[in-house]
Amino acid sequence: MKQKLLEKILQAVGAPPIPIALWNGEVLFAEPSSAPGRVAIRDRMALLRLLVHPDLEYGRLYAAGRLDVEGDLVACLEALYRSVSQRRRRALIHPALARLRRLYQHGRSRSRDNVYHHYDIGNDFYRLWLDRQLVYTCAYFPDSATSLEDAQIAKMDHVCRKLRLQPGEEVVEAGCGWGALALHMAKHYGVRVKAYNLSHEQIAYARQWAQDQGLGDRVTFIEGDYREISGSYDVFVSVGMLEHVGLHHYRAFGRLIDACLKDTGRGLIHSIGRNVPEPFNPWVERYIFPGAYPPTLGEMTRVFDAGGLSILDVENLRLHYARTLEHWLSRYESVFDRAVQMYDLPFARAWRLYLAGSTAAFRTGYLQLFQVSFARADNNEIPWTRDYLYRD
Amino acid sequence: MKQKLLEKILQAVGAPPIPIALWNGEVLFAEPSSAPGRVAIRDRMALLRLLVHPDLEYGRLYAAGRLDVEGDLVACLEALYRSVSQRRRRALIHPALARLRRLYQHGRSRSRDNVYHHYDIGNDFYRLWLDRQLVYTCAYFPDSATSLEDAQIAKMDHVCRKLRLQPGEEVVEAGCGWGALALHMAKHYGVRVKAYNLSHEQIAYARQWAQDQGLGDRVTFIEGDYREISGSYDVFVSVGMLEHVGLHHYRAFGRLIDACLKDTGRGLIHSIGRNVPEPFNPWVERYIFPGAYPPTLGEMTRVFDAGGLSILDVENLRLHYARTLEHWLSRYESVFDRAVQMYDLPFARAWRLYLAGSTAAFRTGYLQLFQVSFARADNNEIPWTRDYLYRD
Repeated sequence: MKQKLLEKILQAVGAPPIPIALWNGEVLFAEPSSAPGRVAIRDRMALLRLLVHPDLEYGRLYAAGRLDVEGDLVACLEALYRSVSQRRRRALIHPALARLRRLYQHGRSRSRDNVYHHYDIGNDFYRLWLDRQLVYTCAYFPDSATSLEDAQIAKMDHVCRKLRLQPGEEVVEAGCGWGALALHMAKHYGVRVKAYNLSHEQIAYARQWAQDQGLGDRVTFIEGDYREISGSYDVFVSVGMLEHVGLHHYRAFGRLIDACLKDTGRGLIHSIGRNVPEPFNPWVERYIFPGAYPPTLGEMTRVFDAGGLSILDVENLRLHYARTLEHWLSRYESVFDRAVQMYDLPFARAWRLYLAGSTAAFRTGYLQLFQVSFARADNNEIPWTRDYLYRD
Repeated sequence: MKQKLLEKILQAVGAPPIPIALWNGEVLFAEPSSAPGRVAIRDRMALLRLLVHPDLEYGRLYAAGRLDVEGDLVACLEALYRSVSQRRRRALIHPALARLRRLYQHGRSRSRDNVYHHYDIGNDFYRLWLDRQLVYTCAYFPDSATSLEDAQIAKMDHVCRKLRLQPGEEVVEAGCGWGALALHMAKHYGVRVKAYNLSHEQIAYARQWAQDQGLGDRVTFIEGDYREISGSYDVFVSVGMLEHVGLHHYRAFGRLIDACLKDTGRGLIHSIGRNVPEPFNPWVERYIFPGAYPPTLGEMTRVFDAGGLSILDVENLRLHYARTLEHWLSRYESVFDRAVQMYDLPFARAWRLYLAGSTAAFRTGYLQLFQVSFARADNNEIPWTRDYLYRD
């Protein structure tokens, strides 16, 4: 294929504003540019597959080593996101189009598969690059120089302060990961916690950790779907689970919160989100987070509407997730060879791309992180201002 | 009609949990109760009209003096709202039902009529009971003992700090009332402001006030619809206008913000809202706020979606509006006789009921007050945390 023709085709499908080096030594879009790196395509078939379905194939080809990025991976992905977002703004894609693309099925058994896929790769893998407490959600950096360890603790405290936990209260957590937040709440705020999670490995880890800390009587870890939650609680909290609930279950999720919350109850939901309805990138959704969906704030309100709840406070922590991911990626790069040994090179490359791509997505405003505080609509025992969150 | 039958009928249409004294001396629902007062119905026809359309007629009959409340007016209305809200929760009204009831028309000429109706009663009327600066929107009380005067200044500062105004910046304000915020921003934050408002009387007042303060060169008041906004601005702000925009214009409103905001632009929209879609009470919508609609947060997101904007922060100030209204009502009661002289008794009673009813609506969580901060989706010059809002 002639170089000029190739450039035209690539421009039509949405070429990133960075040079593309081909297997035969040719370089497309090589004009003097301030690009932070260049894409290398290793064979002709890789290029053709990229032309057919770029959103899906870039990840498959990168994992297979048939597509590479020479230079700053995150910065190149940022440039890509920015160029896509500008095309999108020009094109004014109608929300109905996006809606067509997200007809998921989230039956109970499928939910279990999804979470297995992502979280049961093995605790050892996440231990390579997460913080000591294995918190696999957006951290909160009081200032940008805070370490990842401290920022995950600060995030848990930020959530606990928003929830105004009082000693002796009963808390239910939907989607508890390896249990860090549940144990933090019990240990530092004196509450009793029931924490639900589908992942067998995570629950086993969390139970052991609770025993080690002598918190086994105050924190109960339950291997089960959030839909199995029963009982009556002062506080409902869910950090990084709504992404797995599935849009069509939001109203039922809200009714579940309504059913388990006392009259003076309050809660917090923390979730990756979007400004406009759109699924995760197809490669991420197929290989990394099957079945996951990042809702808009408008879509999230279905939960609260259905639950008879008032939204009191929303904080968008998008840049904090970008910073969290920078830490994860940097740690991951330092153990990359061990990841290759534990799994294989395509697996290790896929996770590098996922962490780098997510960093770029939060930096460019392609993804959001919404932390939503709520209470029953008629509960007037709510904070008068948010001042208390920022006082020492 | 027999007393028992009447009680049954009233219960079916949703009688408030307070005694009802009839013109003939009979008292319905008179069982020992902790009700904060009782409703007095002065004639048989009033009772019949109340049975036919209670949501509309209670206001008409109250204004006409054919229905009265003996005891604490706000507390009785609160009891009413709470009983309605419980019935609603039990009945699980489908949102589609609510949507059917809000097919408004918001043509440009109708908008003008609506605002005239409410805001051009005459400046003198509002001067009777608003604060000195005539701020007719929810105040912000740093603590609940703050005076109304101070709380309106604190609200303006809270908005200005959320907007991170810098000296020399260009600000556009959609719906500026009597100009207090525009002048406050120019005077205390050194910005230049263009402020739009449909009300002839308010604009005339604001222009005079700008002259008196020597701010005529930095604040331009424009008698015009928000849709006439042109130019390019660092900051977009709108306090208490979205209620008049009409749901079907939200996306166009968002595109207008997009068109007039610089790349590093940011903004704030402050609006009365709802948890679930529902129009204002029919009497309020017909007699006090024609054409106005309090959106849910989900409905508000249409503005930001369409404008390519990210929601950064949402604060629900419902209890601050309840407190603001308590101040207004108490001031209003102290000048009630003058309001009767200036207009007539039904007008003065209608406003009393409106202020008392709104107090009850915010206290019971029937209405919300959403303050939403936003920026362009790809703007990373956003605050790292919200800490700066609460530091001195």
